[in-house]
Amino acid sequence: MIEILARKGKAARVKKGQTVKVINSKGQQVVDTWAFNAADLREFMSMEHSRVAIGRIIPGVGDTLVTNKRRPILTVVEDTSGGIHDTLFAACDRWRYEALGCAEYHDNCTDNLAAGLAALGLEPPETPAPLNLFMNIPVVHGNRVEVRPPISTAGSYVALRAEMDCIVAFSACPQDLLPINGLAMQPTEAHFELLG
Amino acid sequence: MIEILARKGKAARVKKGQTVKVINSKGQQVVDTWAFNAADLREFMSMEHSRVAIGRIIPGVGDTLVTNKRRPILTVVEDTSGGIHDTLFAACDRWRYEALGCAEYHDNCTDNLAAGLAALGLEPPETPAPLNLFMNIPVVHGNRVEVRPPISTAGSYVALRAEMDCIVAFSACPQDLLPINGLAMQPTEAHFELLG
Repeated sequence: MIEILARKGKAARVKKGQTVKVINSKGQQVVDTWAFNAADLREFMSMEHSRVAIGRIIPGVGDTLVTNKRRPILTVVEDTSGGIHDTLFAACDRWRYEALGCAEYHDNCTDNLAAGLAALGLEPPETPAPLNLFMNIPVVHGNRVEVRPPISTAGSYVALRAEMDCIVAFSACPQDLLPINGLAMQPTEAHFELLG
Repeated sequence: MIEILARKGKAARVKKGQTVKVINSKGQQVVDTWAFNAADLREFMSMEHSRVAIGRIIPGVGDTLVTNKRRPILTVVEDTSGGIHDTLFAACDRWRYEALGCAEYHDNCTDNLAAGLAALGLEPPETPAPLNLFMNIPVVHGNRVEVRPPISTAGSYVALRAEMDCIVAFSACPQDLLPINGLAMQPTEAHFELLG
C-alpha cells in the first residue's frame, strides 16, 4: 500500500495487465490521476479522446480510457465509490490559486504531477487533463457545471487495469478553498496499491 | 472574408481587441477552433480550464475562454447559430479514422491545425482540445454524450473577440462517416472575417 500524502503527488511504474487500486482512505479526497505510455511520455491518457471512446463524460466499470493516440491505456475494473468522477476540469495550478486570492505559494495538482514524475527521474511533456477520481462535478441541465463534495466513503476505491506498460501519477488534490474535497475543505492522504 | 476550404484548415494572426467572425456558410459545418498566444504558442486556449472559468460546458455570449495559464484569450461577443457548440470531444485525427475503418489517409482536424499554422511558418506545440463551433454533442442524463447534427443554419456565425494578440486556427471538420456535419455527411467550406 503506497501513500499519496495529503496535498502531494506520487507516481509509479505499472506493467500491462497489472491493476492499480486507488483508495479514498478518508472518503472525501479527490485524486487527480494521469497515465503515460512508459515507452513514450508524449502519449498519455486523454480525457477528450476518452469521452469519444466511451460515449460518456464519467467512466464506469468496463470502460477503457484511451490515449491521445486513441489506444487503450486504463480500464475501470471495479468501483466501490459510487461511480462519481470528473473528466471536465483541469488540474489546479498556481494560476488557479492566485485567482482564488492566494498571495503565497499553494500546493497544486499540476506541480504534484511534476514532482511525482521527477521522483522517478521523469518529466511530464505537458499537464494533460486529469481523470479526477471521486470528484463530483455534475453537468446540470446539459450545460452548467457545479462543484459539489464527493459522494465517496472512507476506504472506497477504484481499480484500474493497465492496458499497456505505463507510468501512473496521482495527486491528493490540495484544494482547501472550495468543497472539492468535502465540506470540511480539509485535504487528506489517499493510497494506492499495485495488484497482479 | 477568408475561406476555410471544405475538409481543410486555415489560421490567422489576430490582434488584441479584434473580433473574428466565424461563419457557418452552408449551415451544417462544424469548425474546430483553436487560439494560441502569439508571443508563446505553448500558451493556448484550453477547454478544461475554460469550463472551470465559465462554469459551463458550452460557452455563450459574454463568456471568456481562457488559456492553460487561465488568462483570457477569446470572448464570445455574438452568436446567431443557436448557441450549440462542443468542448468535450478531441479533434479528429488519423487514429480516429483508422478506428472508423478508413484504410487510406483521411483529412482530419489535427493535421489541418498543423497545416494552418505551417502556412504562417508556425508549428503547434501539441493539439489542444478544440472549441468545436456548431458541433452538437449533448450530455444526456448528466453522463451520456450523443453525436447529433448541428442546429445552426446557413450564414449563422459566432463572433469572438481576442483578449490578447493571438493566432487563431480553424478546421472545417472533414468528418463524413458520422452526422457531425449534418445528416448528409457532406463537409463543406466555412468562412471567417477579421473585424476591428
